[in-house]
Amino acid sequence: MKQESVNIPIKTAGKSGYGLLDNISQPSDVRKLRLDQLPELCSDIRRFLIDHLSVNPGHFASSMGAVEIIVALHYVYDTPSDHLFWDVGHQAYAHKILTGRKEAFANQRKKGGISGFPTPLESEYDTFTTGHASNSISAALGRAIADRNTPGKENSKTVAIIGDASISGGLAFEGLNNVANNANNLLIILNDNEMSIDANVGGLHAYLSELSTSAGYNKWRARLYNAFRRKGVVTEEGKGRIQRFANSVKSLVSGKQNIFEGLNIRYFGPFDGHDVINIVKILNDIKDMQTPRLLHLHTVKGKGYKQAEENPAKWHAPGLFDPETGEKICKDSSNSPLPWQEVFGRTLVELAKNDDRVMGVTAAMPSGTSISRMLSEFPDRTFDVGISEGHAVTFSAGLATGGKRPFTAIYSTFLQRAYDNIVNDVCIQGLPVTLCIDRAGIVGEDGVTHHGLLDIAYLRCIPNLKVAAPADEETLRNLMYTSLQSDGPMAIRYPRGKATTKEWETEMKQIEIGKGRIINENDSEIAILTIGPALHDAKKAQKNLESQGIKTDLYDMIWVKPLDTSLLKKIADSHKVIITVEDGVKTGGFGTAVTEWCRDNNPDLKVIVLGAPDSWVKHGTVSELKHECGYDADGIENAVITAQSGL
Amino acid sequence: MKQESVNIPIKTAGKSGYGLLDNISQPSDVRKLRLDQLPELCSDIRRFLIDHLSVNPGHFASSMGAVEIIVALHYVYDTPSDHLFWDVGHQAYAHKILTGRKEAFANQRKKGGISGFPTPLESEYDTFTTGHASNSISAALGRAIADRNTPGKENSKTVAIIGDASISGGLAFEGLNNVANNANNLLIILNDNEMSIDANVGGLHAYLSELSTSAGYNKWRARLYNAFRRKGVVTEEGKGRIQRFANSVKSLVSGKQNIFEGLNIRYFGPFDGHDVINIVKILNDIKDMQTPRLLHLHTVKGKGYKQAEENPAKWHAPGLFDPETGEKICKDSSNSPLPWQEVFGRTLVELAKNDDRVMGVTAAMPSGTSISRMLSEFPDRTFDVGISEGHAVTFSAGLATGGKRPFTAIYSTFLQRAYDNIVNDVCIQGLPVTLCIDRAGIVGEDGVTHHGLLDIAYLRCIPNLKVAAPADEETLRNLMYTSLQSDGPMAIRYPRGKATTKEWETEMKQIEIGKGRIINENDSEIAILTIGPALHDAKKAQKNLESQGIKTDLYDMIWVKPLDTSLLKKIADSHKVIITVEDGVKTGGFGTAVTEWCRDNNPDLKVIVLGAPDSWVKHGTVSELKHECGYDADGIENAVITAQSGL
Repeated sequence: MKQESVNIPIKTAGKSGYGLLDNISQPSDVRKLRLDQLPELCSDIRRFLIDHLSVNPGHFASSMGAVEIIVALHYVYDTPSDHLFWDVGHQAYAHKILTGRKEAFANQRKKGGISGFPTPLESEYDTFTTGHASNSISAALGRAIADRNTPGKENSKTVAIIGDASISGGLAFEGLNNVANNANNLLIILNDNEMSIDANVGGLHAYLSELSTSAGYNKWRARLYNAFRRKGVVTEEGKGRIQRFANSVKSLVSGKQNIFEGLNIRYFGPFDGHDVINIVKILNDIKDMQTPRLLHLHTVKGKGYKQAEENPAKWHAPGLFDPETGEKICKDSSNSPLPWQEVFGRTLVELAKNDDRVMGVTAAMPSGTSISRMLSEFPDRTFDVGISEGHAVTFSAGLATGGKRPFTAIYSTFLQRAYDNIVNDVCIQGLPVTLCIDRAGIVGEDGVTHHGLLDIAYLRCIPNLKVAAPADEETLRNLMYTSLQSDGPMAIRYPRGKATTKEWETEMKQIEIGKGRIINENDSEIAILTIGPALHDAKKAQKNLESQGIKTDLYDMIWVKPLDTSLLKKIADSHKVIITVEDGVKTGGFGTAVTEWCRDNNPDLKVIVLGAPDSWVKHGTVSELKHECGYDADGIENAVITAQSGL
Repeated sequence: MKQESVNIPIKTAGKSGYGLLDNISQPSDVRKLRLDQLPELCSDIRRFLIDHLSVNPGHFASSMGAVEIIVALHYVYDTPSDHLFWDVGHQAYAHKILTGRKEAFANQRKKGGISGFPTPLESEYDTFTTGHASNSISAALGRAIADRNTPGKENSKTVAIIGDASISGGLAFEGLNNVANNANNLLIILNDNEMSIDANVGGLHAYLSELSTSAGYNKWRARLYNAFRRKGVVTEEGKGRIQRFANSVKSLVSGKQNIFEGLNIRYFGPFDGHDVINIVKILNDIKDMQTPRLLHLHTVKGKGYKQAEENPAKWHAPGLFDPETGEKICKDSSNSPLPWQEVFGRTLVELAKNDDRVMGVTAAMPSGTSISRMLSEFPDRTFDVGISEGHAVTFSAGLATGGKRPFTAIYSTFLQRAYDNIVNDVCIQGLPVTLCIDRAGIVGEDGVTHHGLLDIAYLRCIPNLKVAAPADEETLRNLMYTSLQSDGPMAIRYPRGKATTKEWETEMKQIEIGKGRIINENDSEIAILTIGPALHDAKKAQKNLESQGIKTDLYDMIWVKPLDTSLLKKIADSHKVIITVEDGVKTGGFGTAVTEWCRDNNPDLKVIVLGAPDSWVKHGTVSELKHECGYDADGIENAVITAQSGL
């Protein structure tokens, strides 16, 4: 199945010079091509992707791997009357390019430009908002059943395209389990590249590999299938029967069983996901079937770009690179602070070295969260559970009942998947799980589905949970150390990107839970209270204001919950205005916690809350978006000036 | 496999007279019995359960079905050094009775009494807090791995006991998918009674039935297994091989495949879950295996009580009953209002009759939510998706992309499982899904894991989502109707229990979104603002206060979001104190929404918030618990008196 890997000749990013692609502005143009032209189109698309993504970074490897599947789908299906549901969607660049966004692609992921993910706001070809894994089967099933029940749309077709990592998520299983419940014609395409962002894990993964690697059996099955096909005996019913018989024979031979058939979903595959002509043939064969079915296609992440094929994890979202050499073009960061996650990862290893109870847990993000550092030093005490955030948290709770101290690192936006697990499995019984909430706050280019803006609000209402956010590395380390020494659950949130100093390696010490700190006091009537790295924006604002003769006092509260009420009392007694700043929603967040305290204890104090609005924040750079939301240094400065004028 | 069903002779509930059970106060006492005495013990436990549950209601049918499994587990395993993880846990009454809570059982689910679910706060034999489905495998896996990594505990054994409905949840699948990832000795017992609270659904269910019903095959497999056993050739490795071979043969015969084997989990079964002696033998056989494995046992819900066996859904939690006749002892409710859910269910049918776009969705609770009414009238437009709340919401979003108008009824506490689905799949793209949040607020006897106290707080921070709570049936109906006529998502929360009037069948009309109502104005300086049925407590309080010469003004805000800010402004302008009342947490809830508005618009107003505290509320009757939390009529009265004295 593995094809020769070749680097395609490269040209500078542009709007034309991409062969067949130049004449395609919508899927109906694809459908005008001859079948034998499709490999050339795929090659043109790859050149386009390499040219554009080398100068304007994006999700590279997965998009390169899905080109043939996308071309075949638009060739066979009548999009947008037929509906494609992408899972995650960062593999769907070729889909964007074929559906009228070729020109706009140069601005993908930039402020005001198109999103890096499919979104119905952008195109009628994007049926569903994507970004989080494992939702495509459920959503597509809903659409398939809706169409079946809508006069005039009964013949519309619906396809869910899901990766082998996403299909391991519990939501995908819930979808699979319901697929055969009601009459529908859903086709699920399993795009199996044997990779999550990092390497894939879990029983299902092992199962899919096994399913795909009995080469002799595959050949035999393909021959049988083609023989029947040639003789015209592959009827609607017959196809399923042959497959099912073949799968049973295979399970007897290999000892493995077909899970999808077990769930009453017809299974076809595995086939080569880069043989576009064959995919078109298979899709034409099974397109009109009226029963739910799954087509298993094998692809190579990074296909067509040698460096990416060889190291797909590093080429998941490679940033800028030289298209000729594949050399990454990195800013010189030798003088920069480490990223927050790197400090987290190294600190976790330190803690693990000194305390056998420490365990590390991640849901498919060992590199992203830097828990990979612990994974290499303590493989028996570090668990990558795949895309399954709910399990990650409940599994951590289980570890904690056995006296262990799990540090569970999950991106803020994905932690939403584990909300009930946090409430029921961790907090009700007060287990000492440390939730290390990565990518908290605005994340930038990944946009609306990926910002971690809700966590303070959705966690603050849970009894028993401590919620903290460090402004600097030293505090992050002290919080981690303190959680290890304390009882009960704690959430520590920190953002994407660089932390604050090169001298991060401070000695860890236990800090008082619910104790903020005074940064400076200048006899002002205005107090600025920050949580997390917003402190540094406030410091900048304070400096600017000072040069205008406006004094402020500055406090880093560190804890959202429990709030430092004695510090708050001191502040309330000596100020007229409090301005709170947070990288999170204003509705119910840190500023609201301060507001609730003031309501009950010092209602005369004016409280001004800066943070994200009660509307969806789109994509752009982190600083562009914070500015837009009015809580960067400029926003804080303006708020102080307004408050000052009202005194 | 089916055994004769007999009604066991009944005696009045008491502490003795239960044969072998009288001498058992802990599991070590069970282990002193001879194997052949176990059936008698099971029978004694059943008598005890019938006697007690007929006078003090609880979860009857599932507990009757799990007696043999529980007795066998405590007989074979060295509890509490070995660990049992229950799933949901309402089947574990026999476990409670055998682990020192026989006396306390008379007060189960009562305020101050023991919980209806296992909880570590109560007993060292309860390893984990239970209540929500599908978490046992993940938690038990964590414990098994923790023990394996703890000196002195390496030989501890861990068992997860999960029902066939719970195992269909995505969380359980995430657990199963991770079981074979790391070395561990976890045993999963699948207690398969072919029932959720209602009938079971889904591909997995069909699969399990199929797996269990090829009688001829089962006999053959058992004979083979026993033959090998007698000859002593059933070694550690051999057992698995035989099973796997048998499963493969079976999959060839039936066309069905073994999902568990597909996930690298050894599969044993199905066996009769009421043959306690055989279960003990099997457990002894597989207890010391060092690989993850699943034992599939078939049980009958309600076993040993004929009426319950015949109608297990009605006997899930039957309330009071005559143990001799099985007749339910109901209070005469002919003069009572309907339950909220009944009004919801009937209204949904009305809407569906008049609008083809209306669809109904529930996650395993058709009777509980009364969506069963729509299910019988419009089976093609009503979907019970089983225990899979995440799928329920994303599937609804998919329906909505096809122009449908899903009404998705889920209990508040279980909706926590669908948090990310609400955020990403519904609200980001603003799809018109109506979340019908049942059991919102305090639910009473089911206690801490089942109260729906967090929903206002966790939903209020999501952009694009409208959140409302009706005080009466008319408003519930108008809200449902209004949601159907409006764009975008809406959440409507209503509590467990009786609504307010027998004249519920009002004509539905569209109401203004974000518009509250004045109940009465009496020129008071104190305004009481309620959300939902708290209105009626406030009315009661108002009446009591009036008789003491204290006037109040009363407003039903209806909408948490958008807040009726013009009504708020009017109230703020004419009052000195606002008292808010809600059946939900004070941290971040409705009162906080009012507080946020006042902070930004009328900071001089005093706001007093009544609601649930920032600590876990245990079990008891609804009125006991509301009283304890200080937001029943008494609590409101006291708050007004205190406020009045401060004017």
